[in-house]
Amino acid sequence: MVILVDMDGVVADFEGDFLRQWKAQHPDKDFIDMKDREGFYLKFQYPKEYHKFVEDIYYAPGFYKNLPVYIGCKEALKRMTDEGHVVYLCTSPMLPQFHNCVLEKYEWVEEHLGNEWVRKIIMTADKTMVRGDILIDDRPDMKGAITPEWEHVLYDQPYNSKENKRRLTWDNYHEVLFGSK
Amino acid sequence: MVILVDMDGVVADFEGDFLRQWKAQHPDKDFIDMKDREGFYLKFQYPKEYHKFVEDIYYAPGFYKNLPVYIGCKEALKRMTDEGHVVYLCTSPMLPQFHNCVLEKYEWVEEHLGNEWVRKIIMTADKTMVRGDILIDDRPDMKGAITPEWEHVLYDQPYNSKENKRRLTWDNYHEVLFGSK
Repeated sequence: MVILVDMDGVVADFEGDFLRQWKAQHPDKDFIDMKDREGFYLKFQYPKEYHKFVEDIYYAPGFYKNLPVYIGCKEALKRMTDEGHVVYLCTSPMLPQFHNCVLEKYEWVEEHLGNEWVRKIIMTADKTMVRGDILIDDRPDMKGAITPEWEHVLYDQPYNSKENKRRLTWDNYHEVLFGSK
Repeated sequence: MVILVDMDGVVADFEGDFLRQWKAQHPDKDFIDMKDREGFYLKFQYPKEYHKFVEDIYYAPGFYKNLPVYIGCKEALKRMTDEGHVVYLCTSPMLPQFHNCVLEKYEWVEEHLGNEWVRKIIMTADKTMVRGDILIDDRPDMKGAITPEWEHVLYDQPYNSKENKRRLTWDNYHEVLFGSK
């Protein structure tokens, strides 16, 4: 199988690290707990007067580079590859403010997954343009220029819990995708 | 049609600008004229003792960002889009030294083609993973993990002249691809 794996919210803990930094930088302000997150864009769950502060965190140099890696994802990527699947990372840049995230996503992959995975990054704002049998992605809705050939399997997150699609985490992915533990 | 357009040697004049800088920085050394270029990797047409000097030019900060745009390419991208085709840029990063080129390719597109084309960048080391009917690329051989669904149409360059494939330039692309001027 050809398996595409999204980065933010799937291999890199974007929201977890955002929340950690939000609490540290704005201890006086309300925050949205992970279990209460709704909608793909976290900014829009915060009041409008906080949007600038929210963006300041993930637009900051180093934000993408320093995201923690999800537990179990390295082992999962390796195991699927070892079992003969074609596995690629498929990630969209933050737009239009791409200036830090584009390079930092490459640096993150080099640091956490190693050089051979840098070759396996596909960076595109439109994932329908990428070939694959499965796209593992936390984003509830996936749209683009053409009808995708992949099945979108959700990486289980509170903000996509209302979507009626197959879903997985790095704890149960092998059972969900391949029918065995 | 879904049309993928490579960047270096197709919309950005990588080799022309390399040669200009080579002559300026190494006026005492031999150079390979464009008409004499053979093989995809220009480095390997230079003597081994020059390889470091060759790399110093295209690894330098600003090299990718400052590449000249090919005459006619902006008009061609616009016309194909206006005529209803889905047109994406499909470019591979320099690997493993991706540190300047990744961001600079995005900056180059923003500057020369505008913001809407930044959304149309697909950056991948493996173009077989991208969907399309046509890939316009100057690279003689295109290999990857899977059998591509696109037809590789060469952007005509001296170093791919021995390849037996359909070829075009921004002067004649409309006739080659669509049968009309």
